[in-house]
This record gives sequence, C-alpha cells and structure tokens, in this order.
Amino acid sequence: MKLRAYTPTDGQAVWQILEPIIRAGETYALDRDLSRQQALDYWLQHEAWVAELDDQVAGTYYLRRNQAGGGSHVCNCGYATSTRFQGRGVAQKMCLHSMQMARERGFRAMQFNFVVASNQGALYLWRKLGFQEVGRLPQAFAHPDLGLQDALVLHQFL
Amino acid sequence: MKLRAYTPTDGQAVWQILEPIIRAGETYALDRDLSRQQALDYWLQHEAWVAELDDQVAGTYYLRRNQAGGGSHVCNCGYATSTRFQGRGVAQKMCLHSMQMARERGFRAMQFNFVVASNQGALYLWRKLGFQEVGRLPQAFAHPDLGLQDALVLHQFL
Repeated sequence: MKLRAYTPTDGQAVWQILEPIIRAGETYALDRDLSRQQALDYWLQHEAWVAELDDQVAGTYYLRRNQAGGGSHVCNCGYATSTRFQGRGVAQKMCLHSMQMARERGFRAMQFNFVVASNQGALYLWRKLGFQEVGRLPQAFAHPDLGLQDALVLHQFL
Repeated sequence: MKLRAYTPTDGQAVWQILEPIIRAGETYALDRDLSRQQALDYWLQHEAWVAELDDQVAGTYYLRRNQAGGGSHVCNCGYATSTRFQGRGVAQKMCLHSMQMARERGFRAMQFNFVVASNQGALYLWRKLGFQEVGRLPQAFAHPDLGLQDALVLHQFL
C-alpha cells in the first residue's frame, strides 16, 4: 500500500469513495445531499492524502487542526475507505500514517470529535491504535436505520 | 435587558465586544489576530442576537447546528459579554434566551464543544443552567498565562 499526498487529479476517485458514505449518512455528520464540490471542499480544507492499492485509490484521509488559536496544537483527521477495498487494512495504514504526519507537523494530540457509537468497526480500530474515549455525546447522531446513537470523542497524545 | 436579533448595524458594537476576548486568547479557541471581518464572519455564520442594557449592546450570542446531517438536531452557541457590563447577568439571560430559541427551532439538545477549564465563571454559570460535562479534552487549550488547560464538552437536552 502506498500513501501519497492528494493531488487535484484524485478528485473523482476521492468523490467515488466519499459519495456512498455521505449518501448513506450512517457514519459522518454531513448532509446526505452534499454535492461533489461541497464534499471535496469539506474534505480538502487543509491537507489530504490518498492510499493506493493495486494502482487504484483505495482510501483517503484529511489532516487539520481541530481548533484555532489556543487549541491549534491538537489535530483532527477523517478517513474513508473504498467499499471495494474494505478489510485490507487501509484505514489502519492511513491512521498510522496520519499520526506520523501529525507528529512531523508538531501536533501534540489527535482528536476525533464525532465517532458514531454504532460504527463498531471504526471504534474497534481506533481503540486498537491507542485512542481513548474522552467524551460521549448522548443521542447526538440520528442514524437512518438505528435511530439516535451516542457519538464518542476519541483522543490520543502523539 | 432586551434581547433582539442581530442586525448589520450592530457590527461595530459586536466587534467591540469580541475584539478584547479574541485578542486575550484566554477563552475562545480562535486565532488571536483575527480581523474584524473574520471575527464577524465567524460569529454571524448562522443566527445571532444581541443583549441591550442601558440602550447599549451589552452582549451577543450565536446559535447554529453543531453538526450537519445526522447531527443537526443538536445546536451550539457562543456567548460574549462586554467588559463594561460584566456581573449584570447578561450571559445568563443570553443563555436562557438561546435555549428558548433553540427549542423553537426544533433542536433537541445544546452542546458547548470547548469550554476552557480555567474559565471558571463560565463553567459555574453553565452548570447552574443545567449543562453537564459529557467530555473532557486533556490539555486541549494553551492558555497564554496558565499553560495547557483541559477543555470541557458541556451538554443539555432541551
């Protein structure tokens, strides 16, 4: 698996990964009707990377500061894996890469603000990679099938 | 005290309230060098109100959804009181007003994402008004004098 910086020619591949996730509305607190441009604007606000497998874009993640000002030493990431490449360690590889990139940029910690409690696969992975629950937002996410779910705040010092 | 919707003619008064807060960098995770326009753009992203005392703008708050998509039933507010009107119940009045406005707009809960632990006055008030700590972000805020402080996530169902 190869991790490299996002380039504008990756736009369509990244959108093909994000679109089903956004339309499903089960994991990210994003409007389900976001356009391609809105989704890419959101994803690419700061730095983004892609993971390549079999010469295809298998996943993507972004890295940015989680807060401005006095909170800018803590970063935030979002990860998305292509449905076609599930189960091949893409998310884990991206997360480990993001922690390294974050350290190189001087971030002191990484925080995930909103991990939906029903997203068990993600929670299992983030915990395995060292993230701890520092907050639980009660009934903060309306899952289209499962109804109101808690959302977790996960944190790790770098 | 009178609460009313923000109008563009309040821009200077709101900036006069926000500027010392932003420049001090002790409570809001905002870049301390924000321009007037950047600060007002941030504050006025969605709906905002002002509190009037003695025919002057004594405070201001904003109300917006805290997340998009499946998280859009939870709102977020920010409050700022003029230094000249501290201690006269402005923040409390604004918070109670914001909870009512939030209920009218159909929000099910209100969340404050980042209350700096050293901001004892705010914490005392929010707890008095029914907010509960649902998260504690370790060392998430670099206070200019006090060093790294935890930030709290506060929540209340409406």
